[in-house]
Amino acid sequence: MNGAQSLLETFVAAGVDVCFTNPGTSEMHFVAALDQQDGMRAVLGLFEGVVTGAADGYARMAGKPACTLLHLGPGLANGLANLHNARRARSPIVNVVGEHATYHRALDAPLASDIEGFARPVSGWIRVSEQAENVALDAAAAVQAAQTPPGQIATLILPADTAWNEAPGSAAPLPAPSPGNADPDAVKRAIEALRSGEPCVILLGGGAVDEPALALADRIAQRTGARVMGDTFLARIGRGAGRVDLPRLPYFAEQAEEALAGTRHLILVDTKAPVSFFAYPNQASELTPEGCEVHPLVRPGEAWVPALEAVADGVGAGQEQPRVMDLAPPGAPSGALTAESIGQSVGALLPENAVLVNEAVTSGFALPPMTAAAAPHDWLELTGGAIGLGLPAAVGAAIACPDRRVLALQADGSAMYTIQSLWTMARENLDVTVVLFANRKYAILQVEFMRVGAHNPGPKAMDMLDLSRPDLNFVDLARGMGVPAERAVDAVSFHDALARSFATPGPYLIETVL
Amino acid sequence: MNGAQSLLETFVAAGVDVCFTNPGTSEMHFVAALDQQDGMRAVLGLFEGVVTGAADGYARMAGKPACTLLHLGPGLANGLANLHNARRARSPIVNVVGEHATYHRALDAPLASDIEGFARPVSGWIRVSEQAENVALDAAAAVQAAQTPPGQIATLILPADTAWNEAPGSAAPLPAPSPGNADPDAVKRAIEALRSGEPCVILLGGGAVDEPALALADRIAQRTGARVMGDTFLARIGRGAGRVDLPRLPYFAEQAEEALAGTRHLILVDTKAPVSFFAYPNQASELTPEGCEVHPLVRPGEAWVPALEAVADGVGAGQEQPRVMDLAPPGAPSGALTAESIGQSVGALLPENAVLVNEAVTSGFALPPMTAAAAPHDWLELTGGAIGLGLPAAVGAAIACPDRRVLALQADGSAMYTIQSLWTMARENLDVTVVLFANRKYAILQVEFMRVGAHNPGPKAMDMLDLSRPDLNFVDLARGMGVPAERAVDAVSFHDALARSFATPGPYLIETVL
Repeated sequence: MNGAQSLLETFVAAGVDVCFTNPGTSEMHFVAALDQQDGMRAVLGLFEGVVTGAADGYARMAGKPACTLLHLGPGLANGLANLHNARRARSPIVNVVGEHATYHRALDAPLASDIEGFARPVSGWIRVSEQAENVALDAAAAVQAAQTPPGQIATLILPADTAWNEAPGSAAPLPAPSPGNADPDAVKRAIEALRSGEPCVILLGGGAVDEPALALADRIAQRTGARVMGDTFLARIGRGAGRVDLPRLPYFAEQAEEALAGTRHLILVDTKAPVSFFAYPNQASELTPEGCEVHPLVRPGEAWVPALEAVADGVGAGQEQPRVMDLAPPGAPSGALTAESIGQSVGALLPENAVLVNEAVTSGFALPPMTAAAAPHDWLELTGGAIGLGLPAAVGAAIACPDRRVLALQADGSAMYTIQSLWTMARENLDVTVVLFANRKYAILQVEFMRVGAHNPGPKAMDMLDLSRPDLNFVDLARGMGVPAERAVDAVSFHDALARSFATPGPYLIETVL
Repeated sequence: MNGAQSLLETFVAAGVDVCFTNPGTSEMHFVAALDQQDGMRAVLGLFEGVVTGAADGYARMAGKPACTLLHLGPGLANGLANLHNARRARSPIVNVVGEHATYHRALDAPLASDIEGFARPVSGWIRVSEQAENVALDAAAAVQAAQTPPGQIATLILPADTAWNEAPGSAAPLPAPSPGNADPDAVKRAIEALRSGEPCVILLGGGAVDEPALALADRIAQRTGARVMGDTFLARIGRGAGRVDLPRLPYFAEQAEEALAGTRHLILVDTKAPVSFFAYPNQASELTPEGCEVHPLVRPGEAWVPALEAVADGVGAGQEQPRVMDLAPPGAPSGALTAESIGQSVGALLPENAVLVNEAVTSGFALPPMTAAAAPHDWLELTGGAIGLGLPAAVGAAIACPDRRVLALQADGSAMYTIQSLWTMARENLDVTVVLFANRKYAILQVEFMRVGAHNPGPKAMDMLDLSRPDLNFVDLARGMGVPAERAVDAVSFHDALARSFATPGPYLIETVL
């Protein structure tokens, strides 16, 4: 058994059984070892941003890490933007980054680079596996590190000789660390605030938006009159019929300030006090209202359900039933194709248990209201602001949940960062429907341009925010990567195309020009 | 005048007049300032790997830096792989990376990240511009840093308030530092070696492959019997009729060892002693033959022409004329479409003064011999091994040299890392011909798989090196991004298509399925 084989065997024993990869020469022994390891599924991406974004989507849906296999520093570098998103989603991921053989590193060959330097800004754990004797132990430690609450990125750097040298065997899995407990004083203070009669907001973030958390928060709200809100961006939330609907903190700072106005107690559950996404001249960056007390009830890495249970008990929320949504999908739209009509079709047709990946950006405003009473589904979104997560995350979600339809709602500008995802959808024949919103501009930047006070845009500036000249044709792009596709021309043809795609196995792309 | 305006004015005054960009909200004041600054051309890329690779190609052809404009840490991260290549090419580049406003940084908003951490592995110079008052001086320092011999990457991090706050004005350009002089003792030792009568190789790298260097090295070779070789990968070299042909050190270690066998003196000019690209089990990583003395004549950052002149004088190479290639392009091919027939057409049709960007990888073996006696041209290639440079570099070369045809010879696997380049070619209507070699595999990895001793590949391993299932259709991909395209079916149809493209302004892609 060589080092690569012991690494793979250790991963599989620890439950890491999917590898998203774009390998190179220094990773060939890992690739070769795939054939001796039936338990490991290997999924090729043509670009590393696909690989890491897929690992993020997979982790969110599988609740456990996949591994990636990346080629040296530049391969890791290409995956960093989506690792940034994964870090913000607290997705557990184990990166295996190939490195030159230990004795070759110092020679500064063309592909040599500071791999640890590249990895540090996104990784909670980094180790260089210096010897084949230890690589199995290092692999077990990496999986454990990734699973450390609230979830983090573990990067294992694997010199080529560590992979090809003889290794003693695999290592037993290490136990996944348990989350900590919330500070009892924090629980006490939250109860006091909630019983004060003053306006309270319970802000849920991170993992504390699962079904138990939403139910507990809603019961507390019913008992105390507190409002419950969710962070602007969440890694994953269950929505639709049978679930508690969670209002979100708005994206734009002034709207968020308005939503929080008058709050005297802000109770934080697995999140931190809200700040605006960007700074704007003459606007506050911190969104907590003046005079509002902040109560960190559950910090990231702590268990939220026991804390929320304790608070529910403390406020006497014993009898309340969580207020869940009844199934009430919108009807089929007609007329012109608009962002609203698309949202309506999505709400109407969404299959039970679908996974909806939202990177529609400005075109997606109709999606939350139109799907709130749709069939139950999971909703994933961009947590780190690095656009280009949507299509890769759809790949990962589909690998994690082969029996569920994945619906990627994708803006055109952000699609182009990781458009190579379509090829992996075709190769793996994933049940992914991509709805491509083509407004042919970076519309969010046209909004932000004004908001930051850069007035009177001229033609050169506007050119940098414009995606026309030439228009992208996503039907051609999809077909070029083996994904069948069509362009919808009106609300009815879109509705029909969406229904047809949901009923047909495999990937499909529908371009909507708005 | 705000900080962004003073930055742009300073750049233009310093001769930095092209900006490759993919901006976001934090860079909107820079974008707005473009309209007040006629001297700055702004070129949008849909992905940051296009932006940084274009800046590399531009620097190689323009001999001066462009600037990039990148959105926070993730935007920089997406551009790092091609910055790695640019670092190895020693291309001068000035990155401007937007950052949250100074007072917003500490709040850890979703897009916050360790930008300096991302930048460090590729940058020779990094500065955070903390105040609008100083941004012009910082900009002038960045341009100077990029131009420090032998050329490097300067990264200027620009918080949003530095861009939008009032600034006093622009700054005068700082002088570009001059290269150092070679050590006179090194010159003396090189002369002694060359006069020793023992087998000598003069290895040229870096910038020391320009016309004067090649002519001087050839005169020395004629006088002394030394062999002249070039590094395996060069940022830019002039080739074809009227130029000295430079044999290269082969890529594969055992072939490189063979090429250097028997050498007693290795004289290094703007390069270091050769090492193998990757390590292989039971093979040497250092390629200098045993018993061979290494003479670093010109170190990176030193001037090569005076040193080579001194050596030429010292060995008495006074009368020799450099042996340049006569124009003798191959004839038009016929029959099946092969890598050879493509090389033949390229050699036959290459327009005078073309810029040839070679990332054809395994399919490109026929290109060097077939173009050695073609019309004079510049040849650019991948210096850092991070595939995905070819198409972006072609963009940058075409912007730098608007009156020259650019020919990008591009393998399919590597094309997919930065395929978004095609859109920028269409938008800027660049005179770029892309020849896409579609062998539908990572052929180099199939070779390397065997070479690293990972024998008996099984189906899972081979799947990771295979680009079929589904086949990529590059004609569809090109059309999807507004570039006209066709697939050549035989040698004659390829030849005709290539001739037609060379005669037609604007971009064109020819897919060749091998």
